[in-house]
Amino acid sequence: MDRNLPIGIFDSGVGGLTVYRALHDRLPDEHFVYLGDTARVPYGTKSLATVERYAVENAKFLAAHGIKLLVVACNTASALALPSIRKAVDVDVIGVIEPGARAAVAAAQGKPIGVIATEATVQSRAYARAIDNIQAGTEVIERACPLFVSLAEEGWAETEVARSVADQYLSDFAKRDIGALVLGCTHYPILRRVISETINAPIPLIDSGEATATEVKSLLASHALALTHDSQTTTTRKDDRQLCDDLDHFYVTDAAHRFARVAERFLGAVPSVLEAVEVWGQDELRTY
Amino acid sequence: MDRNLPIGIFDSGVGGLTVYRALHDRLPDEHFVYLGDTARVPYGTKSLATVERYAVENAKFLAAHGIKLLVVACNTASALALPSIRKAVDVDVIGVIEPGARAAVAAAQGKPIGVIATEATVQSRAYARAIDNIQAGTEVIERACPLFVSLAEEGWAETEVARSVADQYLSDFAKRDIGALVLGCTHYPILRRVISETINAPIPLIDSGEATATEVKSLLASHALALTHDSQTTTTRKDDRQLCDDLDHFYVTDAAHRFARVAERFLGAVPSVLEAVEVWGQDELRTY
Repeated sequence: MDRNLPIGIFDSGVGGLTVYRALHDRLPDEHFVYLGDTARVPYGTKSLATVERYAVENAKFLAAHGIKLLVVACNTASALALPSIRKAVDVDVIGVIEPGARAAVAAAQGKPIGVIATEATVQSRAYARAIDNIQAGTEVIERACPLFVSLAEEGWAETEVARSVADQYLSDFAKRDIGALVLGCTHYPILRRVISETINAPIPLIDSGEATATEVKSLLASHALALTHDSQTTTTRKDDRQLCDDLDHFYVTDAAHRFARVAERFLGAVPSVLEAVEVWGQDELRTY
Repeated sequence: MDRNLPIGIFDSGVGGLTVYRALHDRLPDEHFVYLGDTARVPYGTKSLATVERYAVENAKFLAAHGIKLLVVACNTASALALPSIRKAVDVDVIGVIEPGARAAVAAAQGKPIGVIATEATVQSRAYARAIDNIQAGTEVIERACPLFVSLAEEGWAETEVARSVADQYLSDFAKRDIGALVLGCTHYPILRRVISETINAPIPLIDSGEATATEVKSLLASHALALTHDSQTTTTRKDDRQLCDDLDHFYVTDAAHRFARVAERFLGAVPSVLEAVEVWGQDELRTY
């Protein structure tokens, strides 16, 4: 495997940019190729069969692009489709659920763990199973919070509306003595402040994307795949890598303009290289 | 054309059930076949090319099923894809934009008209153009209200959260002397009460689905296609047609269970005949 290849990341849409940011922060020497499946977003209200099909198509698109590792940034796809994705591509595949579960168990110190996520992720019980595999018998309290996605994309994260939605969703957690709360959807870190204020207790908020970025760093190091300053063979590297600079490539399956607008809201930066592509049902890709 | 055929209705998801209900109320002798494209919902944040492709696939699916008329219940698809749909199928096609625009002009009596809709519908300016064609020079004030969709689907239509979201979206309209407000997304009639209370003035709310149902009734009568009590040739007709009874067939492209749950919230009834199908990229349909 060529260590100069980029790391592939896919998400159902724009939410995975929070995972991209976490990876970029921890691995400033790496290059990334990101795919947001904006033509078929959201995954969180869709069925297992459909999420699997979409996820495998995305994974194959990135594998064909040439990557050394695939990060499934989408919690729903990680919860439902990881085995199918691993069968479909040759590179190592890391989802966000297991790293998030490990970080939560470490933080919770034996207390119950709260998980907020999409409807599909909650129904899959993927976090509960992952947590049980790490520390059997841990109580897991899960809650779907679908309105958080629209609030984050609308840029309403700091509004009174966000506060009343959070009150509604999180009141059960506020009453329970939980040891950690997992932000089990890539959009939720955008609402971190309002979630934290609503919980109103010093409970660690686990960003699965950040936990995943930490594990990706270890994995690259242990497989001798990390791209460090010394190992660079290309001359394109810049000393001060910026988010969304032209070494990182972004693809969307639809509505690139809207993606760029929400990306700016999420990252404070607009991708330099952003292209709309089709990823479904054909061998050749058509750019439009 | 056989008047015994059903009327086809499609929507991006569950929202078009408000149009189905309006049609069912006005045309109790007709049968309906409804397609909700739940695998690819929502359309309102997607591009023209993508919405066109999805809409044409849905229209062809219903045409192949055998229908006497096609109602495009989805405002976004009506705004962006009506010409493509009309090219793709042989039956008459009615969208919800023009009937909604006509009803708004009639109600507004020369005052400015407000339109609330999805991002894609607002960007298309389809309502503004339709209104200008009917009464040139009418001022049209448009506003995208994306959170209303999640609120309706979550069953939060009557909550404080819905009130504060409505305050945020509708404050501009409350200040203007508008003559009518078009509910330009099929989900919004579910929030009719909170919208009306927020506007806090006796302004007619135009439900495009209801306006469309009225026009469908006239069209069937003028084309001698209406199915009346006397014209019935089948013996299956019941004297007291219920919403969602077994004479009306419902198809979804994904997650039938979730559709049934939200349908119950929207209609107070669950479809007797509900089937998941694929409508894309093939001649034969695979049921799963």
